[in-house]
Parts: sequence; structure tokens; C-alpha cells
Amino acid sequence: MRVRGRLFHGDALRFPKSYPLRLICLALIGAVIWLASEPEGVSEHGGDVTPFLLAFAVILLAARAGGEIFERLNQPAVLGELVFGILLGNLGLLGLQAEALRDTPFLAVAAEIGVILLLFQVGLECDLDDLLAVGPSAVTVAVIGVAAPLALGFAVSSVFMPEDVAWYAHLFVGATLAATSVGITARVLKDLELIEKPESKLVLGAAVVDDILGLVILAFMLGLVHSADQGTSASFSLMPLILIGVKAVGFLAGSILMSRTIIMPIISLVEHFKSKSGGIVLSVAYCFVMSALAELIGLADIVGAFAAGLVLDRAITKYFGGKEPLHRIEESVAPLCAVFVPVFFVYMGMRVELSLFAFPAVLVFAALLSVTAVVSKLICSLGVLDKRLNRIAVGVSMIPRGEVGLIFAGVGSSAMVSGEPLFSAETFSAMVAMVMLTTLLTPPLIARAFGRGGQGISPSQAAQA
Amino acid sequence: MRVRGRLFHGDALRFPKSYPLRLICLALIGAVIWLASEPEGVSEHGGDVTPFLLAFAVILLAARAGGEIFERLNQPAVLGELVFGILLGNLGLLGLQAEALRDTPFLAVAAEIGVILLLFQVGLECDLDDLLAVGPSAVTVAVIGVAAPLALGFAVSSVFMPEDVAWYAHLFVGATLAATSVGITARVLKDLELIEKPESKLVLGAAVVDDILGLVILAFMLGLVHSADQGTSASFSLMPLILIGVKAVGFLAGSILMSRTIIMPIISLVEHFKSKSGGIVLSVAYCFVMSALAELIGLADIVGAFAAGLVLDRAITKYFGGKEPLHRIEESVAPLCAVFVPVFFVYMGMRVELSLFAFPAVLVFAALLSVTAVVSKLICSLGVLDKRLNRIAVGVSMIPRGEVGLIFAGVGSSAMVSGEPLFSAETFSAMVAMVMLTTLLTPPLIARAFGRGGQGISPSQAAQA
Repeated sequence: MRVRGRLFHGDALRFPKSYPLRLICLALIGAVIWLASEPEGVSEHGGDVTPFLLAFAVILLAARAGGEIFERLNQPAVLGELVFGILLGNLGLLGLQAEALRDTPFLAVAAEIGVILLLFQVGLECDLDDLLAVGPSAVTVAVIGVAAPLALGFAVSSVFMPEDVAWYAHLFVGATLAATSVGITARVLKDLELIEKPESKLVLGAAVVDDILGLVILAFMLGLVHSADQGTSASFSLMPLILIGVKAVGFLAGSILMSRTIIMPIISLVEHFKSKSGGIVLSVAYCFVMSALAELIGLADIVGAFAAGLVLDRAITKYFGGKEPLHRIEESVAPLCAVFVPVFFVYMGMRVELSLFAFPAVLVFAALLSVTAVVSKLICSLGVLDKRLNRIAVGVSMIPRGEVGLIFAGVGSSAMVSGEPLFSAETFSAMVAMVMLTTLLTPPLIARAFGRGGQGISPSQAAQA
Repeated sequence: MRVRGRLFHGDALRFPKSYPLRLICLALIGAVIWLASEPEGVSEHGGDVTPFLLAFAVILLAARAGGEIFERLNQPAVLGELVFGILLGNLGLLGLQAEALRDTPFLAVAAEIGVILLLFQVGLECDLDDLLAVGPSAVTVAVIGVAAPLALGFAVSSVFMPEDVAWYAHLFVGATLAATSVGITARVLKDLELIEKPESKLVLGAAVVDDILGLVILAFMLGLVHSADQGTSASFSLMPLILIGVKAVGFLAGSILMSRTIIMPIISLVEHFKSKSGGIVLSVAYCFVMSALAELIGLADIVGAFAAGLVLDRAITKYFGGKEPLHRIEESVAPLCAVFVPVFFVYMGMRVELSLFAFPAVLVFAALLSVTAVVSKLICSLGVLDKRLNRIAVGVSMIPRGEVGLIFAGVGSSAMVSGEPLFSAETFSAMVAMVMLTTLLTPPLIARAFGRGGQGISPSQAAQA
């Protein structure tokens, strides 16, 4: 049907009318196209990107499905994203090819961008003044939250590890228990809409300090292993610790100073820009620069992203005298986070290998480590100085070891001493199991801890302290 | 100053009060941190990502600067992004290290995501009915727009190329002139707010057909070169052409059919989701799946992205009976595009090597190719069947060869026949120069062509044809 000036009459697009017939037509067209194609398309245009695009799309769909199912079960969406990631990563157990998906190039980068944007978003929503208002408690909670797991983990590992290893390997296991995963905790608190509570701000402050302390420990442990590998007795050295402490304090102090000195003049510049998207572009650029800076000086990129969010929050609020422009930035960041943050959690789940848990000794060790992990972090609730806060909630929120724990386990399992790996694959499996259990168990525990034990106190009451 | 419950008094953050003193403090802190750091940080946490984060941030800042400067010169922002990309990529001429920036891993992926999101956004904003309404003209404009450059390019190359090469090399040069860069054109028309004009829709339709035809030609040329390499006489084969034609038609027809058969049921599913970000996540996932599908069957990923945008536009509008939910998706896509699309244009500029233009024969050849490029596409304005439309504007809008032309030049320069490259580095430089000149000259020409020659006709008048 050719009508003058139109190639197709509008009605042609609704043909054929019957739904099953349309499905059949679609299938036929697909089959014809498939037969006409060679496995590698003749086009070299952006050919590298295709596996990544498919993997990204599959992950987004898995994240949506998992998140939706778990939210209908009244659990946080992030738990569903983790579980579906584990499912995706272990399709090999069902005979399906899963390694190609996990090892897709650039997927790890997309996941890293996801956790960076998550911490940036958390920083934007956090009020720096509230964070400093709980300062002393955050530090004490973090310090206990590192010391207790380190000691208890060392003890449990020395007694129960399935094989004989050197003393510093047990210390490494303890170190894996030391660091809270601020990514998981932040996401769970956001999903449960508890992020405004004073306990949450305390936890976030403590988790950031904890993350930094965890990196101090990692640096120290790597130095220890390195000197053991060189045959010198594994000795304790203060200098690296002091250097990292200096860097951490300097970075945070410098960021806060930067807020008035550099960022506010830049904001006044952006206000004169003609383009309306200048704000989000520069915010993301600033976040990435801060993340890279943090990495370059030996801290974690997520610490830089969190600091970037805090600084922008403060600078924009002070410049405009109100929260409205900040909310515009937060609205623009939200779609970026919605697309990238789930990739991080699904990717984390994909890196878990269920087949390693077929060994009984591993299961026992994993169970004991998990118990140790839970108990040692609950102890840190003793560090909460403000008696009106919900201590159990703080302790429980510090339990997840998701992201940083996995990094410790990965680094430790690839470290070599005199040609031998630091610890065995079974121990590595047990550590991963501990990380998984603490991560999976915590969100429901957090929900119950905040529900039980009263509502704590309101943010304004905490600010008056 | 320690106040009960606070680690720092609020005033401490404003100290020191004097601005120069604050800058000095910042510099001192930075110096201390620098001295305390080794070049490679001890943290292995996401270490791969740091160069990418820095490169991404630098590119975003360059894009903003370039876009802002050129907009104040009343030029489209995309031109600024291209120019600043060229500047960034050629810092080596000033003695600075530029290769590291250009070869950052994942940057090419981010650029590809940028052009995919751009075409997706264009597809979302395009109305499929308007596009089909100019159907016959789009096809004739595209066909002439491929045939004329191919013939003229072959002629000019045969006469003026600085060295002696086989006849199919000249044909390859002609093929490079054949394909319009829909990315550049779409961006310029958007920036100049001309995207709603019937001429723009005609151009976009013709550019998509042109892009597909260009890929047909590329596949054909590669087959030709391949058989020449194998010693058989380079012969003409119809079968690949027919296959690609089948694929292209099938893909587009299948997409339109998919709109009612698959997408609309999915939309009704999303409506029942609890999460409010389900829409943008599934839209991006769909866009990526379509892009990957297009690549897998031998078309270009940007064709898939454009089709995805068209399909979603149509499906959402029909499902809700209005444009409001579509605008919400467009608002969510906008920050993603704002962050990724500039990366594509800056990256394209970065791949241009200015040092190659030091040879006079190259300059002459480049100039002649550029003239040929402009003239041959202006000829295609004869293909505009609707006499009320602004023909010159259509012809001028088809001139840019930015993205696809660069791909042709890259593929051709790496193709080998009997161990010899298809054409020399000088010819490659000339081709790149032609691409650059047509890309840089077109936006002002488009602006003038639409301004002069009347306003054309309104979209509703065109729809009544």
C-alpha cells in the first residue's frame, strides 16, 4: 500500500493482527537473520564492545529481577542483587558456560565505577557536620572493630585452620576479618531508609575510618609477608604505618579545606555556564579525580569518592545557602547510580565459587570464622560513647565484610612466600564463605536491630550533644 | 577545641580565615602527602581503574571547556569537544606525553557507550511515524549520497593519489567518502535545536540508511581485498550484498514488530515494579541488547541503539496514550548521555595526529578529497522529492564523515595485500584530514543553510503529504 509521500501506510505496522501470528513472524525474521549471519559479523566497528554490552545488559536484568524478588520478600534489594550474581556466576554447576560472563573485559571497571558512584552518592547525602558530631564514637567503634576481629581471628585460625602455616598467615586471616564493607552497609541502610539516623551516620563514619585502618593493616601485612619471603625474619616496622596515617589524615583534612578554597570558586564559574548539564558533568569529573587521587596516595578510591560527595554537599549548601541545587545534582546522579551500582553487587556475587564449599573441613572452618566475625564486630558496640544510641544496631551494621574482605582474601591467596602460597585454596574458600555469610546475614539483622531496641534518638537530639 | 560530643568545633573548619593562607596550607598538606607516598600505592584495590578515572575526568573537563568556549562563539558545543580532543591528542607536539592518555584501557569502550547512548537518545526523541513519512526521499537521498561520493572519490583518487596502488585501493578511498556520520549530524542538529524540522528527520532517516549502505560497501570492499590477497583476481560477488541487505531489512522490520509484541508487555510488567528506577535500568539494558544484536548480525551497534530508541518511543507512547512517561525516561537518560557522549567526540579528536600533515602532497590530496566530499554529498540533495523542503540544508547535513569515515580509514590502512599495506601512511593522513575538514566545516554550514533558504515547512505540513 503506497500512499503518496509515505513508504508505508500507518496500518501496515499493525499487521498481522493476531498476537501468536506476530510472534511467529518475529521468530521467522530472527531465523532468517541468523542464517544470513556468520558467527563473527563482518563489521569491525566497535567489535570489542559487544560482549561487554551483552554482559552489562544481562547483569542489569539480573539485578532488577533479584532486587524485585527480594523486595517483595521484604528484604533489601542489594541482597537480591548479590544472590542473583552468585547464581549467574555459578551457572557452570548446571553445565552452562559462566566464566566468559565473569571475565568479560571492562566488567570489573564498570563494577568499580558502580561502587565509586555509590559512595559518592552516600557522601552527597551525608551531612559533614552530622558526621563530625559523632566523631569520637566513630573512632572508638572503628578501632575496637579492627582490634577485636584481628585478635579473635588470629586465635581461631591458629587453632582450627585445616593445615599448618606460618604465624603471619593466621594474622592475615585475622586481618581479613578486620575491615567492614562500607559499600554493603551503606546500601542496606539506604534501601531500608535508615540512612538519616544518628546510628547510621556513626556507622558510616566508623566504616570509613575502619576502611582506612584496614588498608593500613593490609599494607603492614604485605610488608610482613614480603620480608618473610626475603628470608629476613618477619619483623614489625612502624614507618609504613606512620606514613599511611599521615596520608589519611592529610587527605581528609585537605578535602575539607578544598571545599571553600577550590570548589566554591568553581561553582560560581559553573553558574555562568550556558549549558545546563555542566553541573553533573563536573560533579562526576570531581568524583573521579578524588577517587584517583586517593588511589595514588595509597588510600582506597571509594574513600576519595565519599570525600568528594561530602565536599560537594558542603560547598553547594554553603554557596547557595540552601539544599535545592544539591537536590538537583542528586537527581542527576541517581540514573547513573541506578545503572552502575547494581553491576558492582552482581559482579561481587559472580566472583563467588560455590563448588569450593564441597569440603567438610572448609565448611567447619567457614562456620567458625563467620561466628568469630559476627561476635568480634558486636564487641565494637562497646565503643559507642553516646548512651542514647542503639548500640546493637551499630555493632550489627559493622558486621558485613563483603567487598574489602574479598580483596583481602584475594590478595592473600596470591601472595607467595619462598615459592609457596600464603595459604591454601581450602582456606581461601573458607574465607570467602565467611565473607558471604556475614554479608547475607547482615541486612535482615540490621533491619531487626533498628526495629527492636527503640528508635534511638532523632538527628537533632544527637546534634545537640 | 573539644566540645562535648564533637571532635571538631564547627568553627575549626573555617580556620585559617585568610584565603592565601588557606591555599598555602592546602599546598603544604599536598606536599606532605606526596612525600609520604610511593609512586605505586600499596593498595591493590581497583588499581587498574585509576588511569581510566583520571583520563575520564580529564576528558570530561576538556569537553566542558571546549563546549563552553565554542558555544560562546555561537558554534555547536560538539565542535569544541572535537577541537579540544585534537588538542589533547596532540600534546606530544609540545613535548608532553599524550599517548598514555589516548591508549588508556577502557576509554574506547566508554567512547563507544557514548555514541550508543547518543543514538539511543536520538531514537527516543524521533517519532517513527514522522520518519516513515519521509521514507522515499530518505532512501533516494541516501542512495545518491553513497553512489556519487564512491564514483567521484574513485576518480579523484586515481588521478591525484601520491603513489601507485591497485584499482581497488582507489575504490576504498571512494568508499570512505560514501558514509555520512550520523553521530556528528545528529549532535549538531540537536545542539542547534533543529532536530524537529522535517529536513532533519529526512536527514536522520537518510543517514541511517546511508550508514547501513556504508557497511554493505565495507563488507564488499573487505571481501574484495581478501580475494586479492589470496591471489585470485579481485572479483565482484553479489551474495554478501544480498545477505547484508536481508539482515538490515529484517532487523528494522523485526524491531518495529517487536514494539507491540515484546516491549509493551514488558512495560506493563515494569509498571508493577516497586522500585522507581526500574524504567531507566531496563531501557538502558534494552538499548545495549539491541546494540549487541545489531553487531552480532553484522550491522553497526549504533543502528541497534537508534532502533531501540525508536521502538521504546513508540511502545511507551502507545501504552500510556501520551508522552509524559517517555519524557521521564528521556530525563533519566540525559545525565547518562551528558557524562558519556562527550567522551566519544573528545576521543575521536584525540585519535587525529596533526604531525602527519607536514607533507605537501598529503595536504593537496587532502584538500582535493575534502572538496570532492562536499560536492558529492551536495549532489544528493537532488534526491529530495518533496519540493517544499530546504534541499541545500539536506545536502549540507549529509556532508560530515566524522565517525564512520574514520573507521573506514582505519580498517583500510591495516588491510594487507600480499604483505603490503593497502595504502600508505600519507594517504591515510589525507583521508583523516578530509574527515576532519568535513566534520569541522559542516556545523557552521548547517547553521547557515537552515537559516538561509527560508524555514522550509513545518512538521505538520510535511505529515499531511
